[in-house]
Amino acid sequence: MTKTIGIIGGGQLGRMLAIAASRLNFRTVILEPQPDSPASQLANRQIVAAYDDEEALAELAEACDVVTYEFENVPVAGAKFLEGLKPVYPPARALEVAQDRLTEKAFLNGCGIPTAKFHAVDSQADLDAALADFGGAGVLKTRRLGYDGKGQMVFRPGDSATGAYDKLGGVPLILESFIAFEREISVIAARGLDGSIECYDPAENVHRNGILHTSTLPAEIYEGTAADATTAATRLLDKLDYVGVIGIEFFVGADGALIANEIAPRVHNSGHWTEAACVISQFEQHIRAVAGLPLGNSARHSDCVMQNLIGDDINDVADWAREPDVLIHLYGKTEPRPGRKMGHVTRLTGPRSETQSE
Amino acid sequence: MTKTIGIIGGGQLGRMLAIAASRLNFRTVILEPQPDSPASQLANRQIVAAYDDEEALAELAEACDVVTYEFENVPVAGAKFLEGLKPVYPPARALEVAQDRLTEKAFLNGCGIPTAKFHAVDSQADLDAALADFGGAGVLKTRRLGYDGKGQMVFRPGDSATGAYDKLGGVPLILESFIAFEREISVIAARGLDGSIECYDPAENVHRNGILHTSTLPAEIYEGTAADATTAATRLLDKLDYVGVIGIEFFVGADGALIANEIAPRVHNSGHWTEAACVISQFEQHIRAVAGLPLGNSARHSDCVMQNLIGDDINDVADWAREPDVLIHLYGKTEPRPGRKMGHVTRLTGPRSETQSE
Repeated sequence: MTKTIGIIGGGQLGRMLAIAASRLNFRTVILEPQPDSPASQLANRQIVAAYDDEEALAELAEACDVVTYEFENVPVAGAKFLEGLKPVYPPARALEVAQDRLTEKAFLNGCGIPTAKFHAVDSQADLDAALADFGGAGVLKTRRLGYDGKGQMVFRPGDSATGAYDKLGGVPLILESFIAFEREISVIAARGLDGSIECYDPAENVHRNGILHTSTLPAEIYEGTAADATTAATRLLDKLDYVGVIGIEFFVGADGALIANEIAPRVHNSGHWTEAACVISQFEQHIRAVAGLPLGNSARHSDCVMQNLIGDDINDVADWAREPDVLIHLYGKTEPRPGRKMGHVTRLTGPRSETQSE
Repeated sequence: MTKTIGIIGGGQLGRMLAIAASRLNFRTVILEPQPDSPASQLANRQIVAAYDDEEALAELAEACDVVTYEFENVPVAGAKFLEGLKPVYPPARALEVAQDRLTEKAFLNGCGIPTAKFHAVDSQADLDAALADFGGAGVLKTRRLGYDGKGQMVFRPGDSATGAYDKLGGVPLILESFIAFEREISVIAARGLDGSIECYDPAENVHRNGILHTSTLPAEIYEGTAADATTAATRLLDKLDYVGVIGIEFFVGADGALIANEIAPRVHNSGHWTEAACVISQFEQHIRAVAGLPLGNSARHSDCVMQNLIGDDINDVADWAREPDVLIHLYGKTEPRPGRKMGHVTRLTGPRSETQSE
């Protein structure tokens, strides 16, 4: 059953996928413009080229039995080009949905999954009208290529919106209404080639400076909320005829109601805890899915807290190593730039406890 | 704290050490004569050379901050040569002890750890005398380089020993008395650079054709027996001023008494379950020790059974993949020769249960 798996993107997610693949005797080829990337250190080979270089994509397809990716901004054209040569999982359609906040929200609503209210903003006039509809409040975002809080403007009642459209670069934007929420959770789910689905327990996430800081298991949510999150993931995965792991972020209201925030058609930072607290990690689950193996059990044997090591946090590794129940996972990056994800730690906090029952 | 760790030996143990090292941002260089070895697929570099090639050993020392090994038959002369250049853990003394069954048993007895009775056999006359002392029964073994049941002859009362000394090659031998035992266990223990010690729970081992078949946690032993195994490991590690992970195999009598069988100064097949059932695996524990990091917690969160995949067992991987609670770990070997270790699987069987209390 040995296969070679192509991975577009050479960051830490590709690195962890490469490790998981190796344990199942799969070989990996990374496509990534940066030489000696984190993923390539653990992969069998790296093709050093741009993500949209068709010659390189063809070379990748030639070398591999199946191709996947580790980030959601893989050029859709490249993914579709690849689909003509070899199976590509998750499907390019998932990239299209995830890359545009407007398409994404419309798609989620189409699956019966609530989101914030939103308006497309393609001009200053659109923005003024949208703000008026939302009582002057909302978050203005670029429709494409925003992540970790970049490319966003917040409006509160009374704020001036003059020139805001041009300030965000005159590109297609979306205004989203504010959401009243008590906490943020995410669900990591997987769908196999046979259509079977596995959902990990929801993690409760805390962000700092727009970057994930911690994911805690169990989330402090009602059992019904956890079930709703699983149902939403199931509908969404089926609708996309999805294969692989997906991350879905939700806001949770005081009443336990869910509002979907965004989806990431890939393994997800808020699922890193699975490598410490589950027998089958999200990385192995993804590799199993794209390689056509049955999915493994997503059950969690332990409670835990995952914390990201961002930038200079890497200097605390010696302290983390003194904590006896902490699994450290570093990404092999040499330069700790501010905001750069250098690694993560997961502390097991005890045997599995249940989420709050309703 | 980035370091480069040299690993002598490129098999599956080196491979799993390389993965564990990568997660702590350590780079690895493998010294191994076989190109494209299992370990090198996950390591940063391989030096293709014989284990006793001093030029290659010097190159390894030059490239690394610390050197370790994945098998106990590393030439002692090479290890001592390396010790003149860079720290080598575990110490060469541990290799000397482990490579000679006579030295090993004498050393264990010197630590107050019981073993089978034994006699050195350096001639046919020695053999005849030794057999007479043991009532005609015993196991004749080569003192050096025997493993997985190779290089052994069994005598029962009445068996002829004529020519036996020459048959085993005329090399130094040892005759060991038979042991009455109910089960076999092993303890995987680690000692850090600071002298701290961590012992994993004893595994109960079943062998087939002289090769480890399964390791089961918890072992069906009295609590006192588990404590005795830990005490034995502690005395032995301290006496060797050991740094790294060691595997110690014991026979357990009906009364729970322990008889040490052998030691392996390296990560051990009967400790593979730790990657599935502990937050810190034996591989990470070894890397932590040799890199001078504090040891992690060796506590086990789950019960489990590890089973080796030997030779054609590799063809059952698709079946194993359908078992939802099984962690599969394959070694990237292409040719499934009989008796060759191709991978292992660990099934989590539930939350941690206790060993039998006394």
